[in-house]
Formats: sequence, C-alpha cells, structure tokens
Amino acid sequence: MNPVFDLLNAHRSIRKFTSQDIAEDLLHAIVSAGQSAATSSFLQGCTVIRVRNPESRRTLARLAGNQPYVESAAEFLVLCADLKRPGNACTQLGKEFVGDCTEHFIIATVDVALMAQTMVVAAESAGLGICYIGGLRNNPREVSDLLQLPGGVYPVFGLCLGYPDQNPERKPRLPLAVVLKDEVYNEVGDVQRIAAYDEQVREYYRQRTGGGLGQSWSEQVAGLLSEKARPHMRGFLAEQGFTLR
Amino acid sequence: MNPVFDLLNAHRSIRKFTSQDIAEDLLHAIVSAGQSAATSSFLQGCTVIRVRNPESRRTLARLAGNQPYVESAAEFLVLCADLKRPGNACTQLGKEFVGDCTEHFIIATVDVALMAQTMVVAAESAGLGICYIGGLRNNPREVSDLLQLPGGVYPVFGLCLGYPDQNPERKPRLPLAVVLKDEVYNEVGDVQRIAAYDEQVREYYRQRTGGGLGQSWSEQVAGLLSEKARPHMRGFLAEQGFTLR
Repeated sequence: MNPVFDLLNAHRSIRKFTSQDIAEDLLHAIVSAGQSAATSSFLQGCTVIRVRNPESRRTLARLAGNQPYVESAAEFLVLCADLKRPGNACTQLGKEFVGDCTEHFIIATVDVALMAQTMVVAAESAGLGICYIGGLRNNPREVSDLLQLPGGVYPVFGLCLGYPDQNPERKPRLPLAVVLKDEVYNEVGDVQRIAAYDEQVREYYRQRTGGGLGQSWSEQVAGLLSEKARPHMRGFLAEQGFTLR
Repeated sequence: MNPVFDLLNAHRSIRKFTSQDIAEDLLHAIVSAGQSAATSSFLQGCTVIRVRNPESRRTLARLAGNQPYVESAAEFLVLCADLKRPGNACTQLGKEFVGDCTEHFIIATVDVALMAQTMVVAAESAGLGICYIGGLRNNPREVSDLLQLPGGVYPVFGLCLGYPDQNPERKPRLPLAVVLKDEVYNEVGDVQRIAAYDEQVREYYRQRTGGGLGQSWSEQVAGLLSEKARPHMRGFLAEQGFTLR
C-alpha cells in the first residue's frame, strides 16, 4: 500500500538492544507523537514515567518476572492510566470526584493503549525496537510504591525502547477471515481456519527452537485462559481507587 | 523527525466524509496491518465486525447517541474484545475456561486498542480520516444483540472510516512536561502548566465556535469525572461473562 503499511506489518517485539542511547529529542518526539492519539472525551488519561535510575530498573525487571531487557533497554517507560490529573480538576472547580466506575477504568485504560501504540509506531519509524511489558502487573503494588503512584493512577504496562540487537521473525497472525466478520459475529469455517493456523504457529516455534513439538496458538491461549490470571489485580485496582462499580 | 511523525502528529477526528468508497483491498490491508500490533500472551483478543447493512448502521448511529457519521462513513467497524475465540481452545483441549478475571478483561481490552490504533495509523497513511465511537457503550446490550455477540465478547468501541470532507484543526494537547515524568509520579509545577494549557484550550474552542466563553480542559474533564459514567457497564460486562473478579 505505502511504506507506513510496511512499517506496521514489520512489527515484532525486540528483547535485545544495543548499548546505543536514544537521543533526548527523539524520546520527547515519540511521547509527543503519542499524545496526538485520540483520547476519549479529551481525557488524556495517560501519564508516562521514564525510569533511568539503574536500581529502579533492576527492581522493575525483577517485579516484571525477571525480564532482563527491562534493565538493559536504552529506555524503560511505565505507562499509567491516570484519573488523578483530571480528577484534580473536579476538586479545583468544587465538584465531587466520581471517577471510579468501570467505564472510567475502560476509558483511561484505552487512552493509555492508544497513546502507547502511537508511541510504538513513532519509535519503530525511527529505527527503534520495542517490547511491551505487561509483566508489571505481576506485582502492581510494588511497582506503584516504587513509582510513588497516587490513588487514581495504575501502571497498565511498561515499554522497553532501544536500538535492536536482534532481528526475530514476525510471528504469524490469525487469518484475516477469522478476525474480520461481516455484519454479525459468526464462527462459520473458523474451526478449519484455526486448525491450519495452529500448524503454522507450531512450525514457527519449531524452527525457532530447533525442532521439538512446537506449540500451537490454541495450546498457548488455552494455557492462559484455563488458569486465573493475576487474581490480585481486582484488589489492587480497588486500593488505587478503581473500584470498578 | 520523519514523515511518520508528521502523520501521527496530524491526527484529528473526522466526522464528515465524502461519498467515496474505501477499496476492498485497502480495507483488508488496514485490518491486516492492525493484526501486526503487539498482543498480550499472543492472545489476539480482538474481533472486528464490519457493518454495511444500512438499517444496522442507522440503528448503531442511534444507539451511539445519535452520531450521524456512524451511518454516513464509508465504513463502520465495531472492535470487540474477544475471549470466546481463545476460550474455544480450552474446550477443544479439554481444559476448563477460567477467563473472567479482571486481568483477562484488561488484556483483551488493551489488545483491541493496540490493534485499533494500528489500523488508524494505516488508514490515515492512506488518506482516510477516522473517528472512534465510544458511544457504542451507551447501549452495549442492544449493540451486542444486533451484532449477535456471544458470551466472552464485548464491543469496546466503533470506528468510522472514510475520505475526509472536512479539515478540522488539531486540538492542543497537554504540555509534555505534564505527561512525561522522571523516575516517579510527581505534580511539581503542573498546576501552573495546566492553568496555561486551560487557556489555550479555551481559546481553541472560542475560535471554533466564533466567540463565547469557550471551555477549558479542566472544565471539560471535571464534567466527565463528577458524574457516574455509563453505570450499566459493570452489569452488562458480567452478563457477557466478564465478571471482573
């Protein structure tokens, strides 16, 4: 279509970075570009915390489940959903703050993701590689304490940025026909499509690991969904003021 | 920095479209590009429903709070968080489905936003304009019934796509120093920064409406956060299997 499509289609997570720094003005331009993303009701509900302190980085790498690239990436950003900042406006204007509905949580979380993904596209267009770090939600209380996050703010995910020192293959995605539906939700033909896709993914992992059984997409996601995931999140969010009522 | 930054920085929502259709292969390329976005645990938790039926479009425009561009845009897509598709893998592999944690909800919702924003960048690079439609969450039950969404699936937002028939100004964003913090969350100096920004936003609205008082950012977001937002969402999500435990 055009070079932007090529850029987007070439995305893969990078977990090994050179020691090259990211220029200060490039980093600022990336975050600025992220701010241009759409934001629900003009909330701008994302705050980015840039962590450079080596000890903090080491701690975050551990809290994220021992992901060394959190420590070694040129930059590590924590993207937070922030209802405190707009909530301050309520106090200031003498209004009650009622920002703890499930809907407010959705708005702020989506705001963060839209801004983050825009930053990612900007970064990749400048030759950087990135890796999202959802693992921060393994220990959100400790992460929040370290970053001094007040009520109304929670860490949605981290983002490693740096110049790639690896060139992994793009992981194959579900067939378009599985993901794009006409008029209504339907699964006609998807069993067959997903079975074929499962073999494609299995082969991808086989080649990356030098043989073995590989793992299909179905096997991988069934693992995720057949166990409780981060069951502490509900309680943690309530502590931070996101009661999800 | 480079033309991609210019593209990202130029974003503004488009609510008036020409009658020009979007070529089928372009639409497919946009959704495909979206699939390249990062996805948590390889879940690929987004299903896109393309609504072309004029009666459905009219209904959705009404359900979104009377937004006529939902009806008039060349394309209207509903982006759904989908835990049913990966959940099917549990059933198939003889595992219990335990996908109703708050964390699963976050993963799927973030997946949708990352994919959507990637589609948006692709679309805008091809000269299209877009508008997110969070208003679908005004009436999520009716939207879900119309689109025959099964349990495990919910409509996060809609997306209008088409060739722009207007050229609105970009809305000014918060100063970078307010949004990007070093090492820890802090608000030092933000009161002054936001006060200056409030006047900038007020002026933006004044110029668009030809005078009057305008509205500051603080006034706008205080309105959003001083009232319950879509209080039906919690119950609706539970009905769809997202118990957020």
